[in-house]
Amino acid sequence: MRAVTFQAPGEVRIEEKADPELLAADDALVRVEASGICGSDLHIYHGRVPVEPGFTIGHEFVGTVLAAGDDVERVAAGDRVLGCFHTACATCAACLRSDYHRCERGRTFGHGSHLGDLQGAQAEQLLVPRANLTLRRVPEGMTDEVALFAGDVMGTGYHAIAHAGMRVGDTVAVLGLGPVGLCAVQAAVASGATKVFAIDSVPARLAMAESFGATPLHLTEEEPKRAVRGATEGRGVDVVVDAVGDPGPLAMAVSLVRDAGTISGIGAYAGKGEAPLGLAWLKGVTVRLGLANVIAHVDRVLGLIEAGKLDPSPLVSHRMKLDEAAEAYELYDNREALKIVLTP
Amino acid sequence: MRAVTFQAPGEVRIEEKADPELLAADDALVRVEASGICGSDLHIYHGRVPVEPGFTIGHEFVGTVLAAGDDVERVAAGDRVLGCFHTACATCAACLRSDYHRCERGRTFGHGSHLGDLQGAQAEQLLVPRANLTLRRVPEGMTDEVALFAGDVMGTGYHAIAHAGMRVGDTVAVLGLGPVGLCAVQAAVASGATKVFAIDSVPARLAMAESFGATPLHLTEEEPKRAVRGATEGRGVDVVVDAVGDPGPLAMAVSLVRDAGTISGIGAYAGKGEAPLGLAWLKGVTVRLGLANVIAHVDRVLGLIEAGKLDPSPLVSHRMKLDEAAEAYELYDNREALKIVLTP
Amino acid sequence: MRAVTFQAPGEVRIEEKADPELLAADDALVRVEASGICGSDLHIYHGRVPVEPGFTIGHEFVGTVLAAGDDVERVAAGDRVLGCFHTACATCAACLRSDYHRCERGRTFGHGSHLGDLQGAQAEQLLVPRANLTLRRVPEGMTDEVALFAGDVMGTGYHAIAHAGMRVGDTVAVLGLGPVGLCAVQAAVASGATKVFAIDSVPARLAMAESFGATPLHLTEEEPKRAVRGATEGRGVDVVVDAVGDPGPLAMAVSLVRDAGTISGIGAYAGKGEAPLGLAWLKGVTVRLGLANVIAHVDRVLGLIEAGKLDPSPLVSHRMKLDEAAEAYELYDNREALKIVLTP
Amino acid sequence: MRAVTFQAPGEVRIEEKADPELLAADDALVRVEASGICGSDLHIYHGRVPVEPGFTIGHEFVGTVLAAGDDVERVAAGDRVLGCFHTACATCAACLRSDYHRCERGRTFGHGSHLGDLQGAQAEQLLVPRANLTLRRVPEGMTDEVALFAGDVMGTGYHAIAHAGMRVGDTVAVLGLGPVGLCAVQAAVASGATKVFAIDSVPARLAMAESFGATPLHLTEEEPKRAVRGATEGRGVDVVVDAVGDPGPLAMAVSLVRDAGTISGIGAYAGKGEAPLGLAWLKGVTVRLGLANVIAHVDRVLGLIEAGKLDPSPLVSHRMKLDEAAEAYELYDNREALKIVLTP
Repeated sequence: MRAVTFQAPGEVRIEEKADPELLAADDALVRVEASGICGSDLHIYHGRVPVEPGFTIGHEFVGTVLAAGDDVERVAAGDRVLGCFHTACATCAACLRSDYHRCERGRTFGHGSHLGDLQGAQAEQLLVPRANLTLRRVPEGMTDEVALFAGDVMGTGYHAIAHAGMRVGDTVAVLGLGPVGLCAVQAAVASGATKVFAIDSVPARLAMAESFGATPLHLTEEEPKRAVRGATEGRGVDVVVDAVGDPGPLAMAVSLVRDAGTISGIGAYAGKGEAPLGLAWLKGVTVRLGLANVIAHVDRVLGLIEAGKLDPSPLVSHRMKLDEAAEAYELYDNREALKIVLTP
Repeated sequence: MRAVTFQAPGEVRIEEKADPELLAADDALVRVEASGICGSDLHIYHGRVPVEPGFTIGHEFVGTVLAAGDDVERVAAGDRVLGCFHTACATCAACLRSDYHRCERGRTFGHGSHLGDLQGAQAEQLLVPRANLTLRRVPEGMTDEVALFAGDVMGTGYHAIAHAGMRVGDTVAVLGLGPVGLCAVQAAVASGATKVFAIDSVPARLAMAESFGATPLHLTEEEPKRAVRGATEGRGVDVVVDAVGDPGPLAMAVSLVRDAGTISGIGAYAGKGEAPLGLAWLKGVTVRLGLANVIAHVDRVLGLIEAGKLDPSPLVSHRMKLDEAAEAYELYDNREALKIVLTP
Repeated sequence: MRAVTFQAPGEVRIEEKADPELLAADDALVRVEASGICGSDLHIYHGRVPVEPGFTIGHEFVGTVLAAGDDVERVAAGDRVLGCFHTACATCAACLRSDYHRCERGRTFGHGSHLGDLQGAQAEQLLVPRANLTLRRVPEGMTDEVALFAGDVMGTGYHAIAHAGMRVGDTVAVLGLGPVGLCAVQAAVASGATKVFAIDSVPARLAMAESFGATPLHLTEEEPKRAVRGATEGRGVDVVVDAVGDPGPLAMAVSLVRDAGTISGIGAYAGKGEAPLGLAWLKGVTVRLGLANVIAHVDRVLGLIEAGKLDPSPLVSHRMKLDEAAEAYELYDNREALKIVLTP
Repeated sequence: MRAVTFQAPGEVRIEEKADPELLAADDALVRVEASGICGSDLHIYHGRVPVEPGFTIGHEFVGTVLAAGDDVERVAAGDRVLGCFHTACATCAACLRSDYHRCERGRTFGHGSHLGDLQGAQAEQLLVPRANLTLRRVPEGMTDEVALFAGDVMGTGYHAIAHAGMRVGDTVAVLGLGPVGLCAVQAAVASGATKVFAIDSVPARLAMAESFGATPLHLTEEEPKRAVRGATEGRGVDVVVDAVGDPGPLAMAVSLVRDAGTISGIGAYAGKGEAPLGLAWLKGVTVRLGLANVIAHVDRVLGLIEAGKLDPSPLVSHRMKLDEAAEAYELYDNREALKIVLTP
């Protein structure tokens, strides 16, 4: 089969590889019919996340089950399925707390040996361990490129909102309108937010957020803090999503959130950084950090997409062929694409 | 001033009474500009809830603050306000748990001496104790007859959903499509329910629920249990609202709810009744009963109305004058009206 | 191997059976070193719960893993383990909500074909499916007869308290001081209850509850309602555990609980029953029913036993041999024993 | 009356002042019978928190109600009462969320004009606004110096644990064993923690924590991270309380907490600080910051003290007279005292 492999920073290549085979009783084998290129893939592409040369990358996928082990109970050969971006064992201490994203035996697709040595999804076929948790049937009538979002980007946007404990009637601000931020905007609206402020400096992204029901605020041309305060009787919003992940946005998040409000840090932070600890303490803020728990959310996300309350389709900016992967990565790296879907 | 008073079962009368006066530092005096007739008023009208002859009835109101005591901080003379249907002290053990509806010093408007001896709102003027908790400013642009719902019927529909712990993505069934049931349908949709089944036997109410986004199910002509199971992979819904309050609907609620799901009993039960305890136990059901905690919800409800996520206006079927109260009660008693709004 | 089998109402018998064998990749084979006789076993013994003649009964066990399938990750051959009373798949919709007790593919040990056709634990060996969830390692230093409680009776007492949402500082009443009620008393004390009222009519059980830190109240010789009100400023307790499961105790529970408090119905109800719906509604009570979710609690329960905060050992009244099973069941049926532990 | 007043950094003085008088309907006048010197008082003493010269300081008190306004319902003249360290209005948006510590009209005793201009409690008499929320009756049999803790230091230790969402069976680490840290240790034990690690570098404080049930760990002579990991199968603890409030302890907290665990930052942070954002993000940590919500906790804390589950009495190291205030502050500033109680 053909597969997109990492070679060196800035270089991915299509290679011919042996078809994967079932190894464990709860494995499934999937023929990949659509895969996505994600912001996390750029970390690999840039060499910031180390992956062995020749390793197949990609972690968003939709396809058809070709074969399933004896213990696979939730899907069967022939089923059209979507995948979550990582696996979880379902029975370790973390999984028993429903923290599937912190599974003690979890593995991430397409991230090399340091994240579980699990070949990636930008390929014609994929071996899916722990298929009962990792896969879900695609609801009837849902397109591949919409289903693709449920186990990664939309699951992450949804997590940003749910993990913050957002309640119907809350006000929300989302910092950073990449795919995750835009999905967070949708999740906030679907969850009954009365006001959603969407903050970025790219006009097209602001316009898209507005079309999802948000109030767009230009990061530098407007004064987000003043606008948010003005619309909330000076209090700030109940929930701020930081979908960027740098100390700058974190400081802005602290300034926008109300007293005793919650900041949901879904954008990845790295290393150490200066944080406005004093102000956060005075306001009595809660900060919830970390990767999304998509396995915990995926059924709910699919239900909301089916019900028309979430709709990732406007985010798909490019549809390309697996063989065009090198070109696709270059395009994505140049920020010319919001979401690229690859088909075989 | 003129006031609608209870006289005897089946008889209400407009009487001339002295204008009320401020008594405590946190009292406010309100000129009532709209009041509602509610299902609870019928209990009084029928004599099931004992009220002294000559007592002013009514507990839903919108108006303008005429005067306020020294300790009234949240509203001021001249403010357009709406009221909650009862008062709460804010500082007893129940209020400190946010159970304002179980306040140990709570009083209900227009329910006679046994519920706090507080004259009612179907009058030209109203004395409002504990004004900081009981009153809210009407948001700009909101009509009287919409604001009227926030402190009673819509607050109750919202409570039915919130008290059940409904989460975005849940499925819901609402039994009984009177004003409270219809508001519960709206609250479920606003809170991100993916499916809301609305069950009643009155075609017009089913049609209204459908217009709010629900799937209507006729109680006797369709088979609600079969329909609900069919649409939920045989599991039943996450949340059932019983907006009726008899053993029959409770039994149906147990049959419709999924394993480990929640029944929210907002309709008032009376006395003892036969309940399907065995089935409820097998399914591991949670049943949450009781009156709505509208003071806890009213700001959120107003925010959702302002944001266009809740809209009680279609429920107003009749607009009448205070002087027509006798006729209005008769009409309401004959079930010819969904909601009657009285103006001076 | 020898096994205790159900034959007919009132008759159990030791039979020689073939040793069980591993069937699935997540099965384990356990040499049973201690098993318990439980109140649920009496339902089988009395013929109220139908079980095929010759079926091995029992669902509480401690032992040593003899063999484990390839997918068993949490325990290994040679490990000393305890079991939960039922299995769960970990990946169905109920398990993903952590409702392991409502698992769509769950099976209960020793309850015949209608609860999953899984042979029981009162035997020399036991086949344990879904071993990753069903089994736990016995912490070092914990005796067999203490560990035995974690996956059934103590897990159930703990559930009664946890499922009620009891918080540190709450007041609690427990109705019925069988093994589950007594464990609920311990769980309430361990969870920081400030007052625990223990209600029964058997002096020895009242005395044991008192030794666990509860205030004993004789059901008929004292007036529980008056005593509870007197000790709670007239309010009633935050949480009532009904460890009996009849309409009578449920009515008492409603009378003892405070406004907006919670009743945890852990005792099994059957069929339909008269319930004080009106009073429960007026008080705004929450009722949480059903079987215990021991898989969700077992690690926490083991930790609390290890820390000395829970201690089921006083409940063991009899230690007998597997071969004495017939005599043991008779004794238990005559209510002469609180807990009987069987060893090979 | 005599009162302890701030004069200049390092200088407090007893002054004669006019007795306070009731101003509002919900004011109470209290004869102070015991007051405490707290860590926050040192911020004033050092001039870090600006207070007007001549302002009466102190915010922990127990005494007797001398007079009460018409709207004071929870206490009456003659009642022995304790106070919370700040007032709250009970009805603003923050109070309605039970965030009394973030009350929009809240005032703190003895902190000068910038925190509400409310004279302090280290005096013979005290004016207490919002008495229904600020005061509680001292339970019968509780000594002054124990009751003194409920509305400030013990309420803060309790908050550190409760705000973290600690559940029975959790493991906890407490960084910093000043009075608040020691109270947090007690609150964790009372709440059912199975292991509490108490970390500091003062042997006497470590010994006291051990006497409360904790495992003491010397900050520099032992390796807290290694010890905590070793005792938690390498995972870290469920909850870390940072009772210090500097970037150093915060970094240690991140290293001690388990994946997806919670850090409760009760020690005050100031300004900006370097935080290990990357590691906190990878672990998926929740950080909850800010001042304690003692009004929300005080009844529960009093109940736990009454039940013998919390006991602050070992923390009282010095009992002195109001007239010795200057000496007492010097002693406290030299870290020779853990807790000083002043009596008239």
